[in-house]
Amino acid sequence: MFRNFKTVERIVFGRGCFNQLDDILSVQRSAASPAVVFLVDDVFTDKPLKDRLPLHAEDLLIWVNVDDEPKTKYVDQLTAQVHQGMAAADMQLPCGVIGIGGGSTMDLSKAVALMLTNPGSSADYQGWDLIKQPAVYHAAVPTLSGTGSEVSRTTVLTGPEKKLGINSDYTVFDQVVLDPELVADAPRKQRFYTGMDCYIHCIESLTGTYLNAFSQAYGEKALGLCRKVFLDLHPDSDDQLMMASFFGGMSIAYSQVGVCHALSYGLSFVLGVHHGVGNSIAFDYLEEFYPQGVSEFREMLQKAGIDIPRDVVSGATDAQIEKMVDVALILEPLWENALGRDWARVMTRDRIRKLYEQM
Amino acid sequence: MFRNFKTVERIVFGRGCFNQLDDILSVQRSAASPAVVFLVDDVFTDKPLKDRLPLHAEDLLIWVNVDDEPKTKYVDQLTAQVHQGMAAADMQLPCGVIGIGGGSTMDLSKAVALMLTNPGSSADYQGWDLIKQPAVYHAAVPTLSGTGSEVSRTTVLTGPEKKLGINSDYTVFDQVVLDPELVADAPRKQRFYTGMDCYIHCIESLTGTYLNAFSQAYGEKALGLCRKVFLDLHPDSDDQLMMASFFGGMSIAYSQVGVCHALSYGLSFVLGVHHGVGNSIAFDYLEEFYPQGVSEFREMLQKAGIDIPRDVVSGATDAQIEKMVDVALILEPLWENALGRDWARVMTRDRIRKLYEQM
Repeated sequence: MFRNFKTVERIVFGRGCFNQLDDILSVQRSAASPAVVFLVDDVFTDKPLKDRLPLHAEDLLIWVNVDDEPKTKYVDQLTAQVHQGMAAADMQLPCGVIGIGGGSTMDLSKAVALMLTNPGSSADYQGWDLIKQPAVYHAAVPTLSGTGSEVSRTTVLTGPEKKLGINSDYTVFDQVVLDPELVADAPRKQRFYTGMDCYIHCIESLTGTYLNAFSQAYGEKALGLCRKVFLDLHPDSDDQLMMASFFGGMSIAYSQVGVCHALSYGLSFVLGVHHGVGNSIAFDYLEEFYPQGVSEFREMLQKAGIDIPRDVVSGATDAQIEKMVDVALILEPLWENALGRDWARVMTRDRIRKLYEQM
Repeated sequence: MFRNFKTVERIVFGRGCFNQLDDILSVQRSAASPAVVFLVDDVFTDKPLKDRLPLHAEDLLIWVNVDDEPKTKYVDQLTAQVHQGMAAADMQLPCGVIGIGGGSTMDLSKAVALMLTNPGSSADYQGWDLIKQPAVYHAAVPTLSGTGSEVSRTTVLTGPEKKLGINSDYTVFDQVVLDPELVADAPRKQRFYTGMDCYIHCIESLTGTYLNAFSQAYGEKALGLCRKVFLDLHPDSDDQLMMASFFGGMSIAYSQVGVCHALSYGLSFVLGVHHGVGNSIAFDYLEEFYPQGVSEFREMLQKAGIDIPRDVVSGATDAQIEKMVDVALILEPLWENALGRDWARVMTRDRIRKLYEQM
C-alpha cells in the first residue's frame, strides 16, 4: 500500500504575493461564518508586517509566542481562546485559521484548526491518523523557511508525555502563501538553524530505506537548493530557501526523517532545545550514519560563522537522559527508515544514551 | 498578481499502486451516484490491463481512440455518450471520470469531466478561465509519461477554428495514480516523443521570461531527470520519466512553454501531426532560440536511434501554411514568455512562415 498523498490545494508563490492574502481569504468568508483567526508570531508586534495584516472587523488576531516549542497545553489554550472569541461575537466557528510565522507558528495554526472541530485535548491526537473530523480551513504564510511545515501532514507538539506530531491528512494546509520577501528579515541564526532542518531532513530522507523516485526527486532538488543557499551563498537565496523548504517537505511524502530527528526530539522534550538547534547539535555527532552529510553540514556551519551549542547534555540528570532515550525510541518509523526493519537490534538504549552523552 | 496555483489534491506514486484504484474510487461512490466512467485508451482492449480495471456493475467503460489528437467534436460525442449511458440506467451524473492512457486520453477525460457539468460545446471553452462550473471528480492513470497532463490546468483540444486548451482551475485532476509499471510497455517511439514533450517544455520554461524560483526548481529537476532517462539511460527510467513528467508539468505553474510549442500547435492543427512528434519536428529548427537545448536534443535523438519526420510541410498548400501561422500566433502567452513583451515586433508572420517552410 502506497500512501495516497494529500497535497496543499492552493499555492501562491512570488515576491509580494502576501498582498493577495485578503483576496484569497475573501473566498472563504461567508455570512454565516465571516471571521478569520490570525495566529501571528509575536516578533511581529512592532514590525511593519503588523500593519499589512488584512484584518476585517469580525476577525480575531492572536499574537502567539514561540519562545518555547509548541506544546499541546498551549494549543488547547489557544483553541479555547478562539471558541471564546467566537462565542462573544455570537459566531460558531471561524471560516479560517491563518498562521503567519515560522514552523512553530505554522504548527500551532494547524493544531488549532484541527482542535476547533475535534473534541478533547490535542495531546489525545499525537500519533498517526487519530484525527476523525476535518479541520477548519487553514492557511500558512511562512516568514522563516526550512521546516517544511507548510506542506507536511504533521504538526509537531510537545505533550505531557512525548514530543510527537499530529500526523493526519486533515493536518495539511488548504493554502500556502509563499512570499520570499517575508523571510528576508529573519534573524541570521534562526534562518540558519531552520535551513539546517531542511538540509538534515533531506539527507535523512535520501539515505533512508523508505525512499522512492517521488521522494528522491524532491529531496535531491531540495538538497541542491540548500547548497545554493548555504554553500554558494546565491544572491536569490530567499527564493531558493523557500523552495528548498517546500521541496524538502514534499520529499517526506514517501520517506521519513531519521536518526538526527529522533535524537533531536529527545533534546527538545527534556531540555526545551528548539527543533532546528537540536537537529544541528545532534547531527554533528552522526558522522557514522551520515558521513557526507555531516561533512558538508560542517562546511555550511563554517561559511555561516555559526558555533553550535556544546555540552548541552552534560548538566542533565540520569533520569533526564533516560527520558530522552524514551522519547527518541517512540519514533519507530524514523529508526526503521534510517536503519531498516531490524533497527531495534542495531540501535539499543545504550547506544542512544552514548550518542546523547557526547552532545 | 501571482497565480494561486491549484494542485492535484491526491497523488499516489509507486510500483503497483494501480491496484489501489478500486479503494480510491470507493470513497467517491455514493448511493445517489454510484457509477464511475472509465475512459481507456483502446490500445489496451487486448492487453492484460483490461482485466485489471476495477469495474463495478454500474460503471461505464468507454474505449477511446487517440490515433488523432483530441478534438472538441470527439469530446462532445463522448460527453453525450456518458449522458446517455447514465440516463439509460436512471442515473444523473457519474461520481467520477477516470482517464487511463497517455496525454491525449488524460486530456479527453479532463474535458469530458468538465463538459458533463458545463453547457454547450467544448469548443466554447477553448481559452483561459472560461469554465464556470466545477467538473465531475476526475482522476488520471498515466500509461505514458511526458506531457505533464496529469498535473496541468489545461486540456489541449483541436476545435473547428483552433488548437487551444481549456485552461481552468477546474481542469486540474482531483487525483493521479502514478504507477511506473504501467509505462514500461509503451512503444519505443511513442515513449521517446512523449518524453521529448517534457524535455522541450522544460527548456522553454527555463529560458522563458516568465520564470520564477518555483517554476525553476521544478523545471531544473525535470530536465535533470530527462537527462537521466535519455542520455544516461538510467536503469530505473520508468520511475524517473514519470517524475520528470510530473515535475515538468508543475514547472509550468508560473511559466509557459515557448516557440516550439507554438509552432507545433500549427503543425497539429493543419496536418494532424501528433503533439510530441510535432514538438520534435519543430525543435530541430530552433537552434537560434534554444542553442543548448537543441544540441542536447539531437544527442538524445541519436542515443534513441530515432529519425524524426522531415519535409512534412513541403506538400502543404499556401493556405495551409497561412493557417499554421494563424494557429501559432493565437498563442500570445507562449510568444511573450519566449521573446518578451515586444514579441510581436520580433516574430512576424513572415518569420514564422519561414520557420515552417524548413520543416
